[in-house]
Amino acid sequence: MSGKFIVFEGCEGVGKSTQLRLLKDYLTESGQPAVFTREPGGTPVAEAVRNLILDKSYEISPVVEAYLFATARADHVRQVIMPALRRGELVVCDRFLSSSYAYQGYARGLGFEMIKQINAAALEDCKPDCTIFIDMDPAISWRKQNGKTITDDRIENESVEFHGKVYEGYKRLAEADPTFVSVAPLPEKSATHRLILEALKKRGLIR
Amino acid sequence: MSGKFIVFEGCEGVGKSTQLRLLKDYLTESGQPAVFTREPGGTPVAEAVRNLILDKSYEISPVVEAYLFATARADHVRQVIMPALRRGELVVCDRFLSSSYAYQGYARGLGFEMIKQINAAALEDCKPDCTIFIDMDPAISWRKQNGKTITDDRIENESVEFHGKVYEGYKRLAEADPTFVSVAPLPEKSATHRLILEALKKRGLIR
Repeated sequence: MSGKFIVFEGCEGVGKSTQLRLLKDYLTESGQPAVFTREPGGTPVAEAVRNLILDKSYEISPVVEAYLFATARADHVRQVIMPALRRGELVVCDRFLSSSYAYQGYARGLGFEMIKQINAAALEDCKPDCTIFIDMDPAISWRKQNGKTITDDRIENESVEFHGKVYEGYKRLAEADPTFVSVAPLPEKSATHRLILEALKKRGLIR
Repeated sequence: MSGKFIVFEGCEGVGKSTQLRLLKDYLTESGQPAVFTREPGGTPVAEAVRNLILDKSYEISPVVEAYLFATARADHVRQVIMPALRRGELVVCDRFLSSSYAYQGYARGLGFEMIKQINAAALEDCKPDCTIFIDMDPAISWRKQNGKTITDDRIENESVEFHGKVYEGYKRLAEADPTFVSVAPLPEKSATHRLILEALKKRGLIR
């Protein structure tokens, strides 16, 4: 596997999308091509599964939610991520397995072991070289938004308590997983961006 | 678990649906209530997954297909099968885990071990008390239909060679799984029906 695989993780509303966009701009401007993709999604089947996951008209139990994410991941890994890594490309993914650990494993209470088991056959040994964790308590981003629901997304719509548990789950992963780099957002987005570039350069993943 | 769980398995076009209908009629007429259900499906989420599986506009790899079936099964087991079994009811299901072993595990070549792993968290220890296997080589049912495709279903539409491998997969399961009862269809549907009733009565599953 000659390519490199970078994943961005974090709670809702903490500026993950902005940082992904800034990284994409930086890589484009510095002539470093990369495949930007997201989970759940990235292939036609995975996007169909994504629509099912986010659809508020379905009642989806935690185990089924974990299976839906694993199904989308199995396709995404085989159709997009692994082929790009085999071609020696840089892949940057918005969320990956750690989201399943934090959301379904920890916040929904399935446990890390069950998430590991459900995802084992989906992964094909695919794992991130580096996970950039935007380390911000969702209670803070929540207050910034005055507690308003911002989308129609079934999971974003969960309570602030739920998102607090997701954050706790991420903190545990960050302690245990050596590929995690916790980046606490600074008031200036460009300053946070520079922290991320530094971390990725230090690990030889970008120039 | 006070209820009983009967599964019907077999290749396409071998008369499984007819035999399920005859059993349903018999149970109704003899005052033995039962929950009749099917896989993939049986719940709103599982039916949505079913539509995705059978949709010919998607390219679905074997692993993703196995995950989709397991996802639907995880919901079906929790919402329909286990609650009915806990209430002491008789559940009759058109296809279950053995279909995944025969179709994705054997005919698509994923192997039984991978199917076992993918389905482990979906099952909640739910397993059939008896699996009625309609034991007919699909090459024979195929000839009966003059090789014509009968539906728009992505899986039924596979080649006769594929369905032959599914049959081989079932034969291996039938040898290894003590809950399997192989019923070779007789020329008269009602005679096959009587064989099935006999087998189920002998095992104390129906009266």
